[in-house]
Amino acid sequence: MPSRRGAATANPKSGEEMEPFPQPTPQIREVPATTPFVAPEELARRVGRTSLVRIGANESSFGPSPRAIEAMRDSLALTSYYGDPESFELRTALAARHGCAIDNLVVGAGIDDLLGLIVRTYAARGDVALMSHGSYATFTYHVVGYGLTLATVPPFEDGAIDVDALAAAAVERRPKIVYLANPDNPSGTLVDRDAVARLRAALPPQTLFVLDEAYADFVAPGALPPDGVDARTIRLRTFSKAHGLAGARIAYAIAAPEVIATFQKVRLHFGVSRAAQAGALASLGDPAFIAEVVAEVARGRDEYRALAARHGLRALPSHTNFVCIEVGTRAQAEAMVHGLLERGVFVRKPGAPPIDGFIRVTIGTPEERALFAEAFDAVLETLREPVR
Amino acid sequence: MPSRRGAATANPKSGEEMEPFPQPTPQIREVPATTPFVAPEELARRVGRTSLVRIGANESSFGPSPRAIEAMRDSLALTSYYGDPESFELRTALAARHGCAIDNLVVGAGIDDLLGLIVRTYAARGDVALMSHGSYATFTYHVVGYGLTLATVPPFEDGAIDVDALAAAAVERRPKIVYLANPDNPSGTLVDRDAVARLRAALPPQTLFVLDEAYADFVAPGALPPDGVDARTIRLRTFSKAHGLAGARIAYAIAAPEVIATFQKVRLHFGVSRAAQAGALASLGDPAFIAEVVAEVARGRDEYRALAARHGLRALPSHTNFVCIEVGTRAQAEAMVHGLLERGVFVRKPGAPPIDGFIRVTIGTPEERALFAEAFDAVLETLREPVR
Repeated sequence: MPSRRGAATANPKSGEEMEPFPQPTPQIREVPATTPFVAPEELARRVGRTSLVRIGANESSFGPSPRAIEAMRDSLALTSYYGDPESFELRTALAARHGCAIDNLVVGAGIDDLLGLIVRTYAARGDVALMSHGSYATFTYHVVGYGLTLATVPPFEDGAIDVDALAAAAVERRPKIVYLANPDNPSGTLVDRDAVARLRAALPPQTLFVLDEAYADFVAPGALPPDGVDARTIRLRTFSKAHGLAGARIAYAIAAPEVIATFQKVRLHFGVSRAAQAGALASLGDPAFIAEVVAEVARGRDEYRALAARHGLRALPSHTNFVCIEVGTRAQAEAMVHGLLERGVFVRKPGAPPIDGFIRVTIGTPEERALFAEAFDAVLETLREPVR
Repeated sequence: MPSRRGAATANPKSGEEMEPFPQPTPQIREVPATTPFVAPEELARRVGRTSLVRIGANESSFGPSPRAIEAMRDSLALTSYYGDPESFELRTALAARHGCAIDNLVVGAGIDDLLGLIVRTYAARGDVALMSHGSYATFTYHVVGYGLTLATVPPFEDGAIDVDALAAAAVERRPKIVYLANPDNPSGTLVDRDAVARLRAALPPQTLFVLDEAYADFVAPGALPPDGVDARTIRLRTFSKAHGLAGARIAYAIAAPEVIATFQKVRLHFGVSRAAQAGALASLGDPAFIAEVVAEVARGRDEYRALAARHGLRALPSHTNFVCIEVGTRAQAEAMVHGLLERGVFVRKPGAPPIDGFIRVTIGTPEERALFAEAFDAVLETLREPVR
């Protein structure tokens, strides 16, 4: 038998001649096997626990609005019907909220879904995508997954994004996409609206500006750019954070109608669940609940900062529902994450310098914050090396 | 200012010089603006109705299992937490059901989601994908969306898929993917297990065999291939049909571990909602409910066939929760769909010959079936041309 290209697999039962099997595309073969985020369920299994204090994924510890829960509950009997692929009611409500047309909006199954759609439609293999080093890992995941070339600029020593370095790199590298998470994840830091405008103005004409505003609800009024988009800016918002609907998978993009029409050509039309659409619409109608969540999150940030200060550790300024707290070296921060996990507390940590010696802790309920503080103190004691 | 490549947009406020804006990739620019399926919500808006008798999208008129509804309801308070990206519990239950390992399984947000993942990972621009002409439109949508070359073979005159023609075309065209919906949508016809095996055996070694078994629950025991996959077959199953969870978006693929590992490298890890996972797991635990749905669907198929026979019209043999009923010419079938819609009844029709003179009607409840029969009779009267 002539040799054939492709890997081979044996038939264990019959011992028959090995047969080649289909291979992924050359581009997909190049993609390494990575997982941007290991789930708390998996971490709990690894340490033999059935549940964890879940303050590692920036989920809301305050749940969805009761109105959202009610709307989702009411929708369940109709779960056998697909959700509206146009999300017409939700887009109508969002258009009113943002002062745009429904043609400026597309709804997706989370910002991760929308980021994949953006990368797929606007950047081909070998195109450059530019971001701040160590910023949101799932954007990087899509950049690698679609075979783009990743370019990064380092953030400042305090974790803040260096907008002017991004602008300079954009002029030099002429990327297809510039990605800015604002507020940033995992640092929690904010780039103010003037700096965002400066970056936008500096971008080459062919560059798409992706503004991931997942944590917008936690930002002080007036600090983010005003509503509105130009022809090459995409703003992303989600119901996963302050709205407490992460488990429902729903987010949206605001962009020029030409950009939305491009997504429309290839997006998964029936990808957003019926319950998610009902929950998001109801949640938009409960601003008082969101305001309460935001206020409690602000209290939690103060507590975490006080905890860090009590140990003489830095905490990064945060405009989100999480805080990065310094531990020491990268190894010490990893030991802290592991030590907390063994004590039943799930947190994560930034992977990239200069903040890889920090842990990233979501604002929990007062009870969760107390459990975290206790465990943090205990693990800190066990770290061999003196911190700072 | 030198001319720059790319389309231009005017700034309506300032009248400033026009500025180019970012363009989609060349491959995406080639994709036409199409929508595989217009939603019933949109159709209702077009005819000024707030609701329709919804028997056009092969959703289940019998809802989800009460156990699934209860499980989803219980999950709602935890909607602020992401669903398990590994769907560990569900995959464990599915592995037991299908006699495979959890490494043979990946869960996605519907078969449409999984089809996109398959096309993206295994076929590059210009590769050939082969299917029966007029079969499931969303596979075609992904084939076009990823820039593949679509090859088709015509079905038989009665709408049944010509497996031997597919096999011959596969040998000739050496496609990267052969897609078989079995039972087929929109025809509802079944290819028996021996013919499936014959097709599989004839495929060139580098061809991936995608077996879309969305309607498997409605097929008589023993008619589909037995559980199990080889290294180049992917079987797709969904909770959208007999399980009544279309609105929750959940389905799965069964494939070799190497194939699953490839998906794992680029899939949307947090793409399946928490409620969907809870509902699917509970639904698997209620086989009696599924058996009732399947029995009622069989009764409904008999009713639709009797309705067709009463008018001297053909109905295609169906192994699904829908039946294709002959109307006459393509134009007459289109007029029937439109006439039914004006009477508040949503059905669809196959787009491709030889069955484009048929409408495709989902098995509704007894009440929905009666409303459909009444409207069908009335619209048939209005069609100018005598039918057959």
